[in-house]
Amino acid sequence: MSLAPVLARIDADLPAATARLMELLRIPSISTDPAWRADCARAADWLVADLQSIGFEAAARPTPGHPMVVAHGGEGAPHLLFYGHYDVQPVDPRELWHRDPFDPALEETPKGTVIRGRGASDDKGQLMTFIEAFRAWKAVHGRLPCRITVLLEGEEESGSPSLVPFLEANAAELKAGLAMICDTGLFDHDTPAITTMLRGLLGEEVTITGPDKDLHSGMYGGAAMNPIRVLARIIAGLHDEAGRVTVPGFYDGVEELSPELRAQWEALGFDGAAFLGEVGLSVPAGERGRSVLEMIWSRPTCEVNGILGGYAAEGFKTVLPAKATAKISFRLVGRQDPLKIRESFRAMVRAQVPADCSVAFRDHGASPASVMATDDPAFDRARRALSEEWPRPAAFIGSGGSIPIAGYFKTILGMDSMLIGFAKDDDLIHSPNEKYDLRSFHKGIRSWARVLAALV
Amino acid sequence: MSLAPVLARIDADLPAATARLMELLRIPSISTDPAWRADCARAADWLVADLQSIGFEAAARPTPGHPMVVAHGGEGAPHLLFYGHYDVQPVDPRELWHRDPFDPALEETPKGTVIRGRGASDDKGQLMTFIEAFRAWKAVHGRLPCRITVLLEGEEESGSPSLVPFLEANAAELKAGLAMICDTGLFDHDTPAITTMLRGLLGEEVTITGPDKDLHSGMYGGAAMNPIRVLARIIAGLHDEAGRVTVPGFYDGVEELSPELRAQWEALGFDGAAFLGEVGLSVPAGERGRSVLEMIWSRPTCEVNGILGGYAAEGFKTVLPAKATAKISFRLVGRQDPLKIRESFRAMVRAQVPADCSVAFRDHGASPASVMATDDPAFDRARRALSEEWPRPAAFIGSGGSIPIAGYFKTILGMDSMLIGFAKDDDLIHSPNEKYDLRSFHKGIRSWARVLAALV
Repeated sequence: MSLAPVLARIDADLPAATARLMELLRIPSISTDPAWRADCARAADWLVADLQSIGFEAAARPTPGHPMVVAHGGEGAPHLLFYGHYDVQPVDPRELWHRDPFDPALEETPKGTVIRGRGASDDKGQLMTFIEAFRAWKAVHGRLPCRITVLLEGEEESGSPSLVPFLEANAAELKAGLAMICDTGLFDHDTPAITTMLRGLLGEEVTITGPDKDLHSGMYGGAAMNPIRVLARIIAGLHDEAGRVTVPGFYDGVEELSPELRAQWEALGFDGAAFLGEVGLSVPAGERGRSVLEMIWSRPTCEVNGILGGYAAEGFKTVLPAKATAKISFRLVGRQDPLKIRESFRAMVRAQVPADCSVAFRDHGASPASVMATDDPAFDRARRALSEEWPRPAAFIGSGGSIPIAGYFKTILGMDSMLIGFAKDDDLIHSPNEKYDLRSFHKGIRSWARVLAALV
Repeated sequence: MSLAPVLARIDADLPAATARLMELLRIPSISTDPAWRADCARAADWLVADLQSIGFEAAARPTPGHPMVVAHGGEGAPHLLFYGHYDVQPVDPRELWHRDPFDPALEETPKGTVIRGRGASDDKGQLMTFIEAFRAWKAVHGRLPCRITVLLEGEEESGSPSLVPFLEANAAELKAGLAMICDTGLFDHDTPAITTMLRGLLGEEVTITGPDKDLHSGMYGGAAMNPIRVLARIIAGLHDEAGRVTVPGFYDGVEELSPELRAQWEALGFDGAAFLGEVGLSVPAGERGRSVLEMIWSRPTCEVNGILGGYAAEGFKTVLPAKATAKISFRLVGRQDPLKIRESFRAMVRAQVPADCSVAFRDHGASPASVMATDDPAFDRARRALSEEWPRPAAFIGSGGSIPIAGYFKTILGMDSMLIGFAKDDDLIHSPNEKYDLRSFHKGIRSWARVLAALV
């Protein structure tokens, strides 16, 4: 089936596609606050109707939380599942928005035309890129390019509580050959990207207890063990002088980049100094001898996300506290086993707790890294397709953050994922004045048409 | 003037004296938090009115912080200045109190009747012991036993910022022959004590700043320096393996006990294991080779009184924080110089701050240790008077806590101090469920009547 008329149709239909996106953006589908529950349902229904209008069999399927939109359409190989989410982040602080977050508009800016509004980039604008690509294909060829399942979630911004049970209960229906996830970004303005490495996350909370109550540091100071001192020693010992994490066995399953991927990353021209400079830093804090890109994409980390002990409010209190707590997370890569690392970390901490203190742990989740099956030829085909649309060739990149859906597709549905998206670093997702470049939207739709053509 | 009718009057008036103390305890005069400023003033006014009711010329004297209560009464030698403080510690963690901290009550416990409430022991209950002794003396003899000045501070629990300027500005008015400070404890349930060695206190707040805003630990984790990690290393390095403080020059001016005092302390039969056992501990945490009594009375320490950084509330947030803060205090002994130690500590911290981070310090007070002039015959007279009231003879003891006022009386007013108090180790001062034994209150009032009779 020919691609050129589909691209032409997309170009001609852009004003109408933009108007449709605006309609969806006007629905305040904030998932985390029950006050907007009816609006989440309304957004789901809007998407169902839109998918039905282009020939999908679609329904808003109830969950204990917000509905899942599931749609089926088309025939023939490959069978692709497209994922996006229709819920959005809250808008506060509201006063920092320069227009109503749910009254979207096109705005001219020095960097081009943008679609301004909550959800424009994360993720309504992105999910509409593939729906508009389907629409154009259907209009030109009378049918969808292949068998397509669509799954649009309404709880991504509120911890996805219904996702795992829904995937488990509907595994047979949802399993496809490959999942296409549209919730990531371009590498930069001109360089499209397929995210092929996502770090995993292990969250631990460590509480050291010393005396059985808070003590007066004058009365007991010197004689009684201070749990903050114990906790500080443990934290101080988590990295060695070279910036490596000291948990025994931590680097098991961590692999070096392939020479090809290393060359690709080097060619990206990522400016580590500028990246750090934007947040007031200049010295990379990770493992000595690694590039900043490696530190955030392909190397595992250990961070203390929070610490609290004793009197931390205004003023001073000479307390020798009973307890001190730290929240510690590990970003995981490659084949690192989160559960083995949890056990090793806990054993290492226990070994450092002095006779008089005790330690308690709380589990804040454990998910392994996702490394995509880039040897699937679909990855190279998609990369070439994207490279034809954008000024610079597409890159396989990593992502420091976690996108749990890819892990769930793998573990629950046995399905690999390809992550393609068109968001930009300056889209202000989760912040006031969120926007999506009109160019991201337009070229995003065209990109999906090209990828579909390359995969069928 | 006869003592017996004063003691009888004290016994008869105990219910009324207890009711007066309850009234004072109901005023939440927390000095460290500006939210309670009006209550501090209210506590000062209450004391002024009470002192006026027993014939003192009294006033709440303004300072840049909370007022000083100053009262003058009586005639004839000796001229004694009585000191106490009407401010109290914060109450958090509030949920560990089994009653409203500012709704005091008498409670029957297996160890006797206690007055439960914030400030019952530290220091409202204690300062009322001498005021009640004055009241009884005045009721029986129609006048006070000698010339008495009263100074009640409202900032003792928040570093006494106004104290030194106030003493300096009012030196001529406040200088007496001897200061009587009531803010210490019994040696044990049956053994009264005159505290002759007080540790000094240096309070420092250290804030490490890394990135210029809180970061997402997925996006920046590994590349951006985490200030909690920096702070933990600094804290972990403050003690060596033998439990000694590592700040350069820290032990300058620290002296060994005289053989006499060492023998006296050994004769007290202090049970270090029981002392630690009462708070759920068993291993002395101080310098290796020192007794527990030395650790808390005659050796200097370094404690972290509070630490806070990142997200420390319920749940988990993958933040890489911009800042981390610790409140650190040093207990000082002998001739240790607080200002030299502050400079040495700050230099040591600065040397450990990596290139990308910055450090800011806040000064939370600095006072040297106090060693009392026990060759003044008043000390032996007071010791004999106390020994008549209590089951066992009074002892000269040390104190781990800091009572900077004794040092200021010496350096600013040229006046020696005698520290007598009736608090007990299990009073839970600075902790939830603070109490004061009704027996401490009753025998404390009687003790002051006896000491006054012995000194006039």
